[in-house]
Amino acid sequence: MARALVLARRGLYTTDPNPRVGCVLVRDGNIVGEGWHEQAGEPHAEIHALRVAGSAAPGATAYVTLEPCSHHGRTGPCALALRDAGVTRVVVAMVDPNPQVAGQGVALLEKAGIEVMVGLLEEDAERLNPGFISRMRRGRPFVRLKMAMSLDGRTAMGSGESQWITGPEARTQVQRLRARSSAIMSGVESIIMDDARLTLRAEQLKLDEAERIVRRQPLRVILDSRLRLPLTAACLQEPGHTLVVTVPDHDLEKCRRLENAGAQVLALAAGEDGRISLPSLLRWLAENRQVNELLLETGATLAGAMLNAELVDEMQLFVAPTLLGGDARALFALPGLALMADQRRLVIHDMRAVGRDWRIIATPEPTSATGDTKVP
Amino acid sequence: MARALVLARRGLYTTDPNPRVGCVLVRDGNIVGEGWHEQAGEPHAEIHALRVAGSAAPGATAYVTLEPCSHHGRTGPCALALRDAGVTRVVVAMVDPNPQVAGQGVALLEKAGIEVMVGLLEEDAERLNPGFISRMRRGRPFVRLKMAMSLDGRTAMGSGESQWITGPEARTQVQRLRARSSAIMSGVESIIMDDARLTLRAEQLKLDEAERIVRRQPLRVILDSRLRLPLTAACLQEPGHTLVVTVPDHDLEKCRRLENAGAQVLALAAGEDGRISLPSLLRWLAENRQVNELLLETGATLAGAMLNAELVDEMQLFVAPTLLGGDARALFALPGLALMADQRRLVIHDMRAVGRDWRIIATPEPTSATGDTKVP
Repeated sequence: MARALVLARRGLYTTDPNPRVGCVLVRDGNIVGEGWHEQAGEPHAEIHALRVAGSAAPGATAYVTLEPCSHHGRTGPCALALRDAGVTRVVVAMVDPNPQVAGQGVALLEKAGIEVMVGLLEEDAERLNPGFISRMRRGRPFVRLKMAMSLDGRTAMGSGESQWITGPEARTQVQRLRARSSAIMSGVESIIMDDARLTLRAEQLKLDEAERIVRRQPLRVILDSRLRLPLTAACLQEPGHTLVVTVPDHDLEKCRRLENAGAQVLALAAGEDGRISLPSLLRWLAENRQVNELLLETGATLAGAMLNAELVDEMQLFVAPTLLGGDARALFALPGLALMADQRRLVIHDMRAVGRDWRIIATPEPTSATGDTKVP
Repeated sequence: MARALVLARRGLYTTDPNPRVGCVLVRDGNIVGEGWHEQAGEPHAEIHALRVAGSAAPGATAYVTLEPCSHHGRTGPCALALRDAGVTRVVVAMVDPNPQVAGQGVALLEKAGIEVMVGLLEEDAERLNPGFISRMRRGRPFVRLKMAMSLDGRTAMGSGESQWITGPEARTQVQRLRARSSAIMSGVESIIMDDARLTLRAEQLKLDEAERIVRRQPLRVILDSRLRLPLTAACLQEPGHTLVVTVPDHDLEKCRRLENAGAQVLALAAGEDGRISLPSLLRWLAENRQVNELLLETGATLAGAMLNAELVDEMQLFVAPTLLGGDARALFALPGLALMADQRRLVIHDMRAVGRDWRIIATPEPTSATGDTKVP
């Protein structure tokens, strides 16, 4: 199964919106076939492994990182393919996280007289697909907040000047975060300030398959309740799609002009405060655009609002060994935080050097028992 | 020599204002004596080692982390003691950093026909005594800036509330930083805000010799140009001395009252801006109070001023995994920093977990070639 997990990881940047899945076929202690899901529209991991195994498949045990599918998709139900190939035992790391279908693949296998075991290295398998699992279980994407900051917690000078706080190695890491994400979200203010393109650049990814990876550009989601995005914004000229999210009473003329400039405009019912409802937007993105992992790259206001709404699942902070001073821009606006008792606690999972900079991976501790389904 | 360095480190908290020194005597490949300087007023490392060696000393090689002294102090010149004991070879990690005396111990040994080698593990030996070396070479203490901050670079809530951002393990580390320092410096504002005692507490040191260590309380230095320190300040009730530094045109009545309350008051010629001249104060502390290592524990204003004046040699940042938000107090006031080109670059030397918190050790990169003598 450990091998199957390694294989699954090869699809990290390419399976979207499908989950990353790996499969290993073992007979008499030898690996007779292996494969992974490489790209949406192409065969599932099991099919690849069975093709490699060929006539060696009968009597084999299949190790699969995700429950084999039971539905007739583009490649037919994998559970039936395993049965037809004569596989006699299937070990599954985790069941399908979609509550509507979970267990049906297992049931199909068992009905065919195949021995099935579930739960081997389950946590590792869950960590492969935080976005897919979040979308299936919670109906919203897994939200990863990326920020680049100075050691004194500043993201830009008071003037807004910010390029570049961190070095090229950190920017490569950010490119890879973008590459594994279905979508990148930003506030219009950040776009106006930096004219950020929010795209994958093959030369910065520094991966063997960079050219293939950048063929899929993550959806760019720009929160812009007053439709202030300039028609000349760089992100509108780039490959891939830009979704401008606004509120219903938007200016129709501006909207039309943005659409002519290449944007898609989504008017979403506003929250009680008249702003775009963040939970509604996340739900919409999961349901309508199959967004698994969402990378939030934005300024203090939207980052603070997402944190306050407890919609951030993971933070990746890139810390540059520099001081920008007390007049520089803050990392988070967290209005209403006045007492130490109100502080937002985090759990730091990893802190390591990335070139001259440091990367911190942390998760916010929930402020209360919200009953939100846990996602790895 | 590596063993001698380990021994020298045992004096980390107790030799002040003397340097930490270790000595190992080796004859025929065996250690026949070893010792370290334990406390000012007590014998030097070489004397301890010679006492252990006794009749085994003749013909031995002495490994000493610092050039043996040539002056008649409380324990007589160690160079002569080594000669008298019959030591035939002396290996020295580094010469005495005092330009007035450097090399005289070596000369005395060589004059006595003893073979001398200098420079073995010199950098390690220098790292043992950054303060002593700074005082001797630059005429000012080695300044270590300690700050406790949230992950978003905040030291306190907007209200000033700050206890406690970091956990007990980090506070123990801070106690140990205090214990190795000759003095602790703070601005009066921080004292008024927190009523900090700036003392060593045996129970928080978590060291075997804690009771002995806390018998020497570091000098408390409080910058207070307008003599605002309350007569009831907790630090005035504690063992050890509190030095209140002000400018010449201070209120004599207030000054007398502070002295009655236990403080020493120092009026130092002000800088051009009417404030206490930081370089003058550091020079005064080195010359008049033999301050080797100075621990700066203060707020954004004084910390920023010391950084701007390039008087900070090392920063130790204790980072708590929490967010305090954009309204909370900044780590540094660095007035005049407006452009990315003005940013203060640092070199990060170490980043590690301390309980739930993280400790970052960094040194500021000089903003220009100031010609300041390098100190380890």
